Amino acid sequence: MDTLGARLAAVEAGRVVIEMAWARGLTQQHGFLHAGMLAAALDSACGYAASTLMPEDAGVLTIEFKINLLAPAQGPRFRMEGVVVKPGRTISVAEGRAWGIAGDGQEKLIATLGATLMTVVGRDGIRH
Amino acid sequence: MDTLGARLAAVEAGRVVIEMAWARGLTQQHGFLHAGMLAAALDSACGYAASTLMPEDAGVLTIEFKINLLAPAQGPRFRMEGVVVKPGRTISVAEGRAWGIAGDGQEKLIATLGATLMTVVGRDGIRH
Amino acid sequence: MDTLGARLAAVEAGRVVIEMAWARGLTQQHGFLHAGMLAAALDSACGYAASTLMPEDAGVLTIEFKINLLAPAQGPRFRMEGVVVKPGRTISVAEGRAWGIAGDGQEKLIATLGATLMTVVGRDGIRH
Amino acid sequence: MDTLGARLAAVEAGRVVIEMAWARGLTQQHGFLHAGMLAAALDSACGYAASTLMPEDAGVLTIEFKINLLAPAQGPRFRMEGVVVKPGRTISVAEGRAWGIAGDGQEKLIATLGATLMTVVGRDGIRH
Repeated sequence: MDTLGARLAAVEAGRVVIEMAWARGLTQQHGFLHAGMLAAALDSACGYAASTLMPEDAGVLTIEFKINLLAPAQGPRFRMEGVVVKPGRTISVAEGRAWGIAGDGQEKLIATLGATLMTVVGRDGIRH
Repeated sequence: MDTLGARLAAVEAGRVVIEMAWARGLTQQHGFLHAGMLAAALDSACGYAASTLMPEDAGVLTIEFKINLLAPAQGPRFRMEGVVVKPGRTISVAEGRAWGIAGDGQEKLIATLGATLMTVVGRDGIRH
Repeated sequence: MDTLGARLAAVEAGRVVIEMAWARGLTQQHGFLHAGMLAAALDSACGYAASTLMPEDAGVLTIEFKINLLAPAQGPRFRMEGVVVKPGRTISVAEGRAWGIAGDGQEKLIATLGATLMTVVGRDGIRH
Repeated sequence: MDTLGARLAAVEAGRVVIEMAWARGLTQQHGFLHAGMLAAALDSACGYAASTLMPEDAGVLTIEFKINLLAPAQGPRFRMEGVVVKPGRTISVAEGRAWGIAGDGQEKLIATLGATLMTVVGRDGIRH
């Protein structure tokens, strides 16, 4: 989150919003936010969202995610939302959406992500 | 690539290898390399691999990718390989694999990624 | 659609609903609807949804899709919805959701699907 | 498998091959094998492959899969291969590949699939 310059904008049961600003170190060769950075932020949003529905002593691990990049990730600001579609004792499924926010406040959907997450209990060093 | 501390270790027609070292800023809450950083490097490897089979004046855009995280991304070093499975005039498909490399040189498969990439020609500012 | 015993329940711009009934030939080893059959119906719903936003002489091809299986696909009836998230001249992205419908009418989300679709114009034999 | 007209051509530890013939009921609107049918067969191949590495009393459930459709699924015959990339106590990851086989025996890669599978033990009615 620090590397990404991101912050939690909203946390509720099964839903998390992360906001971040464009930064030069995060861009790819065309000057947009790199797909991997978008993925990192959306994966984090989904992981946090899932963890809000897990036991306190549980950790969350991402098993897999798929991201669709819908439009160039032009900022200067970005909002990522993670929502749990199906909570589960072992396996949870969450969906993420990312919007680019222009200087005039106009928003554009730039990416969707679907993640499969696993609840992990009792492994040393793995706590959310 | 700079943010990730990554470098190109091999480039051939339809195949690219990227190597990178573990760095604290790239880790998630459990101390391992963050999934998004792995994804960024694997996506880059796949994109470079696809671009080796495209016309010189073409750019490559990732439409989507899916990543499976197989094991904790413990380094201290990592190797990412991108290989084109199906080159195409408009759409190409590539697969990526990431290995963690321990201090004694032992390698472990930590992630697989499948990407769909698009050839882009003649848009300003989009060149590979 | 015939093999699946499916029918179009709703068609509007960017959204299609397909309904189908459970049938023995479509089940896997546990007696539920097979994941592939769910995928076939959801992919069809997404493809139809995308085609509603394409030129009349264009065809639609699925480039890729990912499906998450959330719960056993118990019927006896099923509803599949395909919605276009991002229409595009060449590439469109759609999302599908499937619900199992019990005898008492209660619905349960059983699968989500995300598809990348391509507009195809002027290839013989490919018309939607 | 019966609906698909498929048969097991090879079964070994962590790898399964399924062969099937083209049939009119399985095609989509362009006359090729429907993506969902390809997905059904590839998912089955991956599931069987994973089950070969699981305890005898365990069942296998597909959590999710992604399929890339690389070329029109022209037969008249097809071969699907499922290979376990990462076996696990709870979660396994497998990859599938499908080839179309022409009348003269020439093969063409038509689809790749990546699946996440779960080992299920001790639930009634779920046995592989």
